[in-house]
Parts: sequence; structure tokens; C-alpha cells
Amino acid sequence: MTDLDLGTGFPGRAAREATFVPPGPRLRPREDTTLPGRFTYSAQIRTTGAGMPTARFPEWLAGRKQAHHFRVDRIPFDQLDGWSFDPDRGNLGHRSGRFFTVEGLHVTVEEGPFPEWQQPIIVQPEVGILGILTKEFNGVLHFLMQAKMEPGNPNLLQLSPTVQATRSNYTRVHQGGEVKYLEYFTRRDRGRVLADVLQSEHGSWFFRKVNRNMIVETDEDVPLDDDFCWLTLGQIGELLRLDNVVNMDSRTVLACAPAWPADSGALHSDIDLLSWITDERARHQVSARLIPLDRVSDWVRGGSSIDHVRNWYFRVMAVAVQAGNREVAGWTQPLFEPLGTGIAAFLVRRFGGVPHLLAQARVEGGFLDTVELGPTVQLTPNYHDHLTGPSRPPFLDLVRDAEARTIRYDAVHSEEGGRFYHAESRYLIIEAEPDQAPIDPPPGFCWVTSGQLNSLVRHGHYVNVQARTLLSVLNSRAVDL
Amino acid sequence: MTDLDLGTGFPGRAAREATFVPPGPRLRPREDTTLPGRFTYSAQIRTTGAGMPTARFPEWLAGRKQAHHFRVDRIPFDQLDGWSFDPDRGNLGHRSGRFFTVEGLHVTVEEGPFPEWQQPIIVQPEVGILGILTKEFNGVLHFLMQAKMEPGNPNLLQLSPTVQATRSNYTRVHQGGEVKYLEYFTRRDRGRVLADVLQSEHGSWFFRKVNRNMIVETDEDVPLDDDFCWLTLGQIGELLRLDNVVNMDSRTVLACAPAWPADSGALHSDIDLLSWITDERARHQVSARLIPLDRVSDWVRGGSSIDHVRNWYFRVMAVAVQAGNREVAGWTQPLFEPLGTGIAAFLVRRFGGVPHLLAQARVEGGFLDTVELGPTVQLTPNYHDHLTGPSRPPFLDLVRDAEARTIRYDAVHSEEGGRFYHAESRYLIIEAEPDQAPIDPPPGFCWVTSGQLNSLVRHGHYVNVQARTLLSVLNSRAVDL
Repeated sequence: MTDLDLGTGFPGRAAREATFVPPGPRLRPREDTTLPGRFTYSAQIRTTGAGMPTARFPEWLAGRKQAHHFRVDRIPFDQLDGWSFDPDRGNLGHRSGRFFTVEGLHVTVEEGPFPEWQQPIIVQPEVGILGILTKEFNGVLHFLMQAKMEPGNPNLLQLSPTVQATRSNYTRVHQGGEVKYLEYFTRRDRGRVLADVLQSEHGSWFFRKVNRNMIVETDEDVPLDDDFCWLTLGQIGELLRLDNVVNMDSRTVLACAPAWPADSGALHSDIDLLSWITDERARHQVSARLIPLDRVSDWVRGGSSIDHVRNWYFRVMAVAVQAGNREVAGWTQPLFEPLGTGIAAFLVRRFGGVPHLLAQARVEGGFLDTVELGPTVQLTPNYHDHLTGPSRPPFLDLVRDAEARTIRYDAVHSEEGGRFYHAESRYLIIEAEPDQAPIDPPPGFCWVTSGQLNSLVRHGHYVNVQARTLLSVLNSRAVDL
Repeated sequence: MTDLDLGTGFPGRAAREATFVPPGPRLRPREDTTLPGRFTYSAQIRTTGAGMPTARFPEWLAGRKQAHHFRVDRIPFDQLDGWSFDPDRGNLGHRSGRFFTVEGLHVTVEEGPFPEWQQPIIVQPEVGILGILTKEFNGVLHFLMQAKMEPGNPNLLQLSPTVQATRSNYTRVHQGGEVKYLEYFTRRDRGRVLADVLQSEHGSWFFRKVNRNMIVETDEDVPLDDDFCWLTLGQIGELLRLDNVVNMDSRTVLACAPAWPADSGALHSDIDLLSWITDERARHQVSARLIPLDRVSDWVRGGSSIDHVRNWYFRVMAVAVQAGNREVAGWTQPLFEPLGTGIAAFLVRRFGGVPHLLAQARVEGGFLDTVELGPTVQLTPNYHDHLTGPSRPPFLDLVRDAEARTIRYDAVHSEEGGRFYHAESRYLIIEAEPDQAPIDPPPGFCWVTSGQLNSLVRHGHYVNVQARTLLSVLNSRAVDL
């Protein structure tokens, strides 16, 4: 282990200690208005940082992959160890009662091309921690990132947060090693919290799942483990332009960074935006209830998978994992395997010189609070290409037929590799013309600024995980709109 | 009907029209920073307003009561019209499938003196509108309030919002008259939204119920109906010092008013406060699921009521209502009747000269999102007086034994009279000494400013309905801390 503290220490400390402290408790400003500037500065430092030049990162990641032995094999359900279908309801669960279960979901949304359906769904009530530790080196915020294997990742090893731990992980149900750097996120005295919010995950595959997204700043000397590296926000932005390098957990945490000042103008005031969201929530009557997995209609369980009768959407399958650097050396588990590549695209337009993104009020069966804001287009084309007329998703053709010169961002990222097998989506940011995306968009859509998304994402249940991936792209200035 | 527009019209209009509008859409400031000042100014206008002097209000209310015929009688369940217990599950519902149902709830919270229980609960998935229309007269914001009968109100008639309508109300399931002034809250072109948020209601009696809390400003001439009056925020504050005059729906809406500037300091920064709430949510593992009403343990259904075996908590009963000014002239319905008077009290201390309230992170079985902030003490003493040691609620004795000179606010208010029968609580704000309420409070408690509560209440699921009653007291400056 080496210590990478090349910098001048924690810049705020000397200033704080020099200030006169009056008797009695000292009040704090409610907001630290220096944070957006500090994150922006880190995003502007690209090519190299205190840890390594970005150009050397692929070699470093390949080295981490060689240092461990990883292997993932599909297995039939009856080779799962500790996992089984319960005889009463057919739900797939672990004998410990922990981790997660696969159950059935019945959803009624009362409108649209798919007003009612049933499906398998992952139920995981525990709240995990996704935490990124940050520290200044040479006056620049660096983020402690981890090369981490997840069985569902297309390339197995991706860049993950400092800590990515389910409660089962860190309370040791795995009976594996301890979670490195966990104490920065569980002990108040080890750092300063810059972001801390429970965010939803994929509402199509998870039932009301939330994880705790945290960014914590430290001024301590941090011993650097082999699988970890310090990167600036700008370096992470460079990696976000590559396919399948920065994992979903990193992207959602970086989306929560306070990276935008609050003071710029927007097409809609914040209260008008909140009122629009409230209206969208009030007008949708969504019912989503768990049902037994063996009573889900249109899905069939075989020996190695649970499939939709049309071979649509996804399948539930199982894998055996061998790994050298995980908390436990080997295990088996179920995964969801989507059967098509998704699209998640924001249209962008400038109003009064300020870039605005066209957000969609999305109903997903697994959301806790009915509606969250998603990208303009979020779907798997395979299952929507047949739709015509008013059923056809707005802006789908615009996104599919976008000319190269209008595409500001285009990369393939995969979703959480601990639950989803090769779940890839193409993430896009596309410039739209006034006649393509009008200032008064169709019902269910609203123009918002990056700063407004940044304010909303301080709170849970406003910005969905796909929109957060695209917000992490903006926060890290992987694209400058 | 008379029109009370004594003022100079909408002061912003002339200024807006005189401003040069550049080509293309105009951006708006994200926040209207004049609002806290305008609400504060209205709160300072007490004794009289454009409508009537506050001293004349009791007479006006009595007049409204005389103008109508009201009568509420207890009836046995079998005299309910259109309501019945369904044969399969024993749930109590209306034949239309609308309004609400009484079902069973099984709650597991895994800690505290009551770690697991079952109870009857009201299930009402529809989102209603609680809306207050506001308009400037003589440069002062006035609020259009309604004298409204609710069968559970101790004095039947209380001051309610301009619009207080379930979806069944305004989509005419009642088949009664139309809801007056509704268009200001359903049509975007009729006013300017100042607050619009889905807020939870009583988590002990409702399963995940939310209502839409709205404040809308208009500059139109507003015809004044007989049962309505315009009051300043200060006048409503004077009425909030009286028992059982301002109803719960008014209180929760007024709590959402943007009445505090965002810039003052606090003991904890906003992100530290959010982080504390996130931590409280993550550490509680709450399970709450609906069960059939006829399988709720410890509750017994008789001919006229459903009671707890110890005669604790509340009973489910039924009433027949005769009324002259409601959407329908007479009806029957079930109500929940609490069996003791509650206490809801905030302790307050000044830090650095700024008043702070001691908020409690509360788990209630009916909450959507595990934890909301409530008053320091919120309970019905009857069911907690026997608890000793660590089970005894913190600060209960301090609140019960508070000396008169420390009590800054003390009034009895009743909860929603459309669902609860004589559900009275004593609402208190009490000054605490450092040795009574330390700067580092016990786990589950945190010091917050009025301004911080005001920021949280822009979003749903942060501030519970009891804390919102006390926040309405602060917003209307019924007490100046």
C-alpha cells in the first residue's frame, strides 16, 4: 500500500482554525457555496491527476484483472448453492433469508400501450451503501475508485465506488473479508458528508429498491489498496466516454455530486417544476403489488431460466462465480439477463443561452413514489418498434435517426453487474431543433436545466437511475453543453 | 356574492408588462426571493384585513353555522348506506369502490416498546386537493378560507382551505354540487403556483395516504361565496391560537407556504440534516403490509364499533350526517374515533441567536418512506405513561411538567374531521434549557430551524402532519420565537 497524499493537505483546515470562535455553539451556513466550484474545478482537470494519467488507466485496469482469477459460468437453477424456489409461492430466495428474492409483480397503470402486466421482480428491502471517498491533492478533489468484478459486467471488471456494499456484505452474512474504507461512510468523525441520499434503482427490475448514495470528503492520510486509484472528476469524465468502464454504482453516486451552482435561470422556476412533478404524480393511479412468482402469467420457468412466452424483456438465470479479490472466493446467484440493448437519451436545447434537457415523467412498476424523472427516451427498441400512432413513444424516431453532428454524447454502459447480466444501454445526449422538440412539449415532458436536476437529486425518488447516469456525464463534464 | 377587491390589483403585473422582453423565450429566476417577505408581511397584519376584523370572525363563523342545518349521529354499522364489510376479508368499503376502505395492517419495526402489531387502517389511494387561493388586497396577501362542516369536528364547523376535495368529490362520485374555486387548482392559466406538494397524513391511521397541498395566487376578481372569507396570514395566526377553529387541512397547506428566507445559518448545514435523515431511514427496517380486517389480532368487531381488546388507541365507528351546505345533503360513513387526547410538542432552543426546534425521526406504520420528521414528543399519554426506563419516550416528562412561563404556544386542534371523530391533540411549543435538551440530543433527534423545515416541506415525506401543524403556527407567526 502506498499513500498518495502529494497535496498540501485539507485547504479549509487552516482557515477554519484561524477564525475567531465566539462562546457557545457556532452556526454554519446552510449551504457550502464553494462546493460547485470545487467539483467543477476537478472536472476541468482531465488528462492527468495525482494518481495516474488517464491514458495509463486501461493498462492499470488490465493489470488488476490479471492479478485475480475471475470466471463466470451459466448454471441450471438446481446447481445454485443455498438458493431455491420456495414450495408455497415459487419465489427464488437464499436460505439465509438475506440478499434478495425473485418474486412476482402485478402492475396496473391504467393507460398507455401496456396498461397492465405481470413479471418477475427482484425484491431487496435492505439498503446498501454506494460511497465515494474524496480528498484534495494539490487543491483538486480526487475520488477514490475501485476496480471491482461483478459477474454481470460485460467485461467483468469496471470502475466502482470506494464502497459498494449491501447490508449483507458489511454485516458479514457473506462471511468474507471486511469492506475496505467502510468506516468513512458509517462513522461521522471520519469525514465531511458532501452528498447522502437514498436513490431508487431500476423500476422495471427492482421492487422499491433504494441504495444510499454518499460522497464523503476526508483530510486524513488514506492508505491506498492495490485495487483502488485516485482520479479527478475530469478523468472519470474521460472514462465515461468509453463503453462499459464506469459502473452504474459510480455513475449514480457521481450524479449526486453538488456540481452546479443554484443561481442560474431556467425556463421554469423550481416551484413550477415541482408543481409539474406533483401533478404527474397525482394524475397517475398506479397499483403495483407482489404476487407469487409461480403465478406470474406469461412467464415460464425452465431448468435454467424463467422466460417470457414471447422471449421478450429479460430472463431470470443463474451463474457460478469464481473470483480472487471479492469478499468471498466463489459463489452462485441468480441474475436478470435483458434480451435487448436499451436506449436512454436526453434531448437538449438551449433557451436564453442555457442548455435544457427534456425530462420525461416516468411510471415504472417498481418505483416507491409513482413517478420519477427519466431521460426523454428510455426503452428497449425491440419491444416498442411495432407501436404506431399515439402508442409510439414520443421522440423515439428522432433519437434513432439522429444525425452524427447532433449527437453530443454516445456511449454504452451496463447496469448493476451484481444483479443484471450484460444489461447494456446506449446512453445519448442529442441536440434537438425547435421543430423537433418544441418549447411546449407533449404531456409528461418538461424542460429542465442541469442545475435543476442537481437540486432534485439531493432528494430521493425524483431522478431515475438512467437519468442519473446521464447527469453523471454532465457533472463530470464528459460533455460540455 | 360580493367582490372584495379593495386593493390596487396585482402589483407584479404592471412591472412585468413594462419590462423589455427579448426575442425567444425568457428565462425565469429559479426562486422568487420576494415570497418569504410577502408571506411575512401578511403574517404581520393581524387585527384586521380586507375581509373583516379578526374580532368579528367568531360571529361570522356562528352565522355560517346558523345558516345551515347540521346533525351528526352515531349509528350501528348495519345502518350504513352503501358501506359494508366484504365477505372474504372483512374489509369495510363503499359499493362504488371509491372513497376509502378500512383494512388491516401488520407492522414490524424491529425495535422500541412496540416492535410488532396489527391494527385497522384507512386505505385511500386517491390523491385529494387541499388548496388555498391567495390574492393581494392593498398590497397584502389574503387567503380565501372556507367555513366547512366535517362530521368529526368537535364543533362541526371549522376554517378550511378554499378547496378541500377528494378525487371522488371533484369527479362527482358524490353526485353533489360542483367544488367551488376548483378551477384555480386544476387549470394552469388561472393563477400562479406558490406551493404544490404531496404530503403524507397521519401514519398511525392512514396507509400511505397523501394529499396535494397547494397555494395559488391570482390577480383576477374573485366572486366571494357566502361560506368564504379573505384573511391575512396574521389573522389566521390569531385564530390558530384558539382551540379547534383552523382545521387540519388548512394547517398542513399553510405549513407549505414559502414563509422563511433560505439564507440564515443553522446548527447543522442542510446537507448534514439530509444526511441524518438518510441515516435514520437506512437504519430502520420497517415492514408494513395490508392484511384482511377480519384477521387483525387484538381487535374485535361489534355491531357499532371495532375496538382494541384493551379499549386502547381508537375505535372504528359510523355516523349519519345531515348537512345543508355540503356537496350532498346527507350521508353515512365510518370514522376513526381516538380514545385519548394526543400531545404534539416541539422543544425550542436558541443557538447563536437562532431558534431551533428539536425534530424527531419518526417511524409510523402508514408512512410511504419509513421515516418523517415529527415534533419532539408526539403520542397519546394514556398508552405511554406506564413505560419506564429506556422505553419511556424521551422528553415526555419535560413536556408534561412544563412550567407556564416556558410554554410559548398551547392550543388544542383536531385532526381531519372527514375521517376522524373528535381526534384532538394538544399542540405545544416549549422553551427548553440546555440541561433539559442538550445540543447533542439522543439518537433519533436533531435540532432544525424553521427555515430548514420550510425547505424540507417543499418536498413530500419529510415533515409529518403533526409537525406541519406546528410549522403553520410558526409560518403565520402565531408565536414569534
